[in-house]
Amino acid sequence: MRGATIKDVAKSCGISVSTVSRVLNDRPDVNPATREKVQSAIRELAFVPNNSARNLVKTETANLAVIVRGFNNPFFARLLKAVETDVYNSGYAMVLHHIDSSADEIMAAAMLAAEKRLCGVMFMGGRFDYAPKELNMLSVPYVCVTYTNTFGSLADTDYASVAIDDYREAWRAVEYLYERGHRRIAAIVSGKADRSVSELRYRGYRDALLHFGIEPDEALVRESKDFSLAGGYRATQSLLESGADFTALFVIADTMAVAAIKALRDNGRRVPEDCSLISIDGLDISAYVDPVLTTLEQPAEDIAHAGVKLLIGLMEGTGGNAHSYFPAILREGGSVRELD
Amino acid sequence: MRGATIKDVAKSCGISVSTVSRVLNDRPDVNPATREKVQSAIRELAFVPNNSARNLVKTETANLAVIVRGFNNPFFARLLKAVETDVYNSGYAMVLHHIDSSADEIMAAAMLAAEKRLCGVMFMGGRFDYAPKELNMLSVPYVCVTYTNTFGSLADTDYASVAIDDYREAWRAVEYLYERGHRRIAAIVSGKADRSVSELRYRGYRDALLHFGIEPDEALVRESKDFSLAGGYRATQSLLESGADFTALFVIADTMAVAAIKALRDNGRRVPEDCSLISIDGLDISAYVDPVLTTLEQPAEDIAHAGVKLLIGLMEGTGGNAHSYFPAILREGGSVRELD
Repeated sequence: MRGATIKDVAKSCGISVSTVSRVLNDRPDVNPATREKVQSAIRELAFVPNNSARNLVKTETANLAVIVRGFNNPFFARLLKAVETDVYNSGYAMVLHHIDSSADEIMAAAMLAAEKRLCGVMFMGGRFDYAPKELNMLSVPYVCVTYTNTFGSLADTDYASVAIDDYREAWRAVEYLYERGHRRIAAIVSGKADRSVSELRYRGYRDALLHFGIEPDEALVRESKDFSLAGGYRATQSLLESGADFTALFVIADTMAVAAIKALRDNGRRVPEDCSLISIDGLDISAYVDPVLTTLEQPAEDIAHAGVKLLIGLMEGTGGNAHSYFPAILREGGSVRELD
Repeated sequence: MRGATIKDVAKSCGISVSTVSRVLNDRPDVNPATREKVQSAIRELAFVPNNSARNLVKTETANLAVIVRGFNNPFFARLLKAVETDVYNSGYAMVLHHIDSSADEIMAAAMLAAEKRLCGVMFMGGRFDYAPKELNMLSVPYVCVTYTNTFGSLADTDYASVAIDDYREAWRAVEYLYERGHRRIAAIVSGKADRSVSELRYRGYRDALLHFGIEPDEALVRESKDFSLAGGYRATQSLLESGADFTALFVIADTMAVAAIKALRDNGRRVPEDCSLISIDGLDISAYVDPVLTTLEQPAEDIAHAGVKLLIGLMEGTGGNAHSYFPAILREGGSVRELD
């Protein structure tokens, strides 16, 4: 007994094979009633779709790994969704692996590659200081997403990356506060010298202050150690307990900024009346807190698409190493006030 | 030239092989200085770990798929992290696939299974109304996580599940409000008849009202269509615009509850002074909004561990179909007030 084919499904619904195929591929351009009818027919006929066109090209599906560093940043969840859709549409399977932000992503990738038949690796978050030698451990193509090799010794031609310009965006955040009259600007960073995104944003903050003729004051900077709500809360609490004097706060990530608003409020300081606040990321949640955050939104979908495209180009030999920067988009909320 | 071995790494650090192994497996019981030393030695020697003990048992790694239905519920992100750690520690690779909440997860799984050499599937979110025939499409073991077959015709012995009791937890939420004097209790659900988690929670809400002698009023119920912030905001806004009279709001998920607080505030109603609010999920964010949400927390880690254990038991033939329920844990915040 042969199994049902896509033609059987189309015939039983009285529609074309290409419409059935659009349903199978979860395409949006199918009306809901038709989708429902096709799905019923598939169940009725116990049809198992097998993407035959795709299988003509590839006899066995290759795994592409995404290694996410750190568990606490919802920005990565947003990126991941866009990446996953692109990977799947390209005919690869996506293997996901989270590592702690203190763990080594190169080692994790090398282990995965040895065990899981990988054909490529996307690093989502990672150290900015790779040396060529350690990358030799990795025998498959890779792309760095949300970071570059600023602090390392890789040649630009030896790796691929997609990111925002962390240094520059932090600079812009400080500039935004400065233009609204703020001079005592505090900062919540993850780490000042973590050789990663936080160090770059901290440097951008510091250099912007210097540029505007303000002497950076280390008493106004606190490290949260990670990107969690709890970390952001603790760091802000510690800053407030120190009695430091500031009119505005630059927080390097939205998650921590949401917690910072709560810490300020728990200490009797309203945002923006008593303290202005600006951050980076543009997560959905930032538009649903009180006040709505003023934030520099990372174009997550653009970053994801560019990252997958770069990686697949490297894997399939149709593209080379390259570097893309996307500017963040200023989204003004109600968390910054102009000083008189 | 032979590559470096784990012994070479241990020797160069002057520590035992088992300590190096603990670092490789990202175990917490290693002090940071030792971890750093081992990681440096690994880079220096270009050692590629290969989990040899694990490889003695399995010659090729099998993929286990997790199919997440719906993109908007951060609760799934929390579950996913716990699931992924367990899957990886069990020696499998985890293939992740998100589908739209209108798409069919069985079809997605059948397609993945045909293409990606799967040995098992975890459904994270799905329809509660499978019929035996459609499950025949799936040739590998599977487990339903966060839902059961309440509305379907599968025999309990024919499938495995791990979930909370959605009906009962919604009941508890209403009971909590009722005990504090609330009688006009509105609800924001995703769908009243979606054959899924939302319908069960809606039924729990309705039946609890009836139990307490309150006639359910459909004018107090709004459907958000999904679990997003935007959906929760729109549904609450629509409820407020209708002029409906209520003192408390039951929202079926934390994400939507965060947006509901904002919609209430944007309409000049304070929580809990003018309207009490309770929800289900216990996401981290619920403790960082103003006021802190009173919510029934789903034990995500317990659910994840149980789900992976069930699935691997089925895959390896060491366990059978079973069903686990975990009670939610009441986490009292400041979003409910007692009526005088």
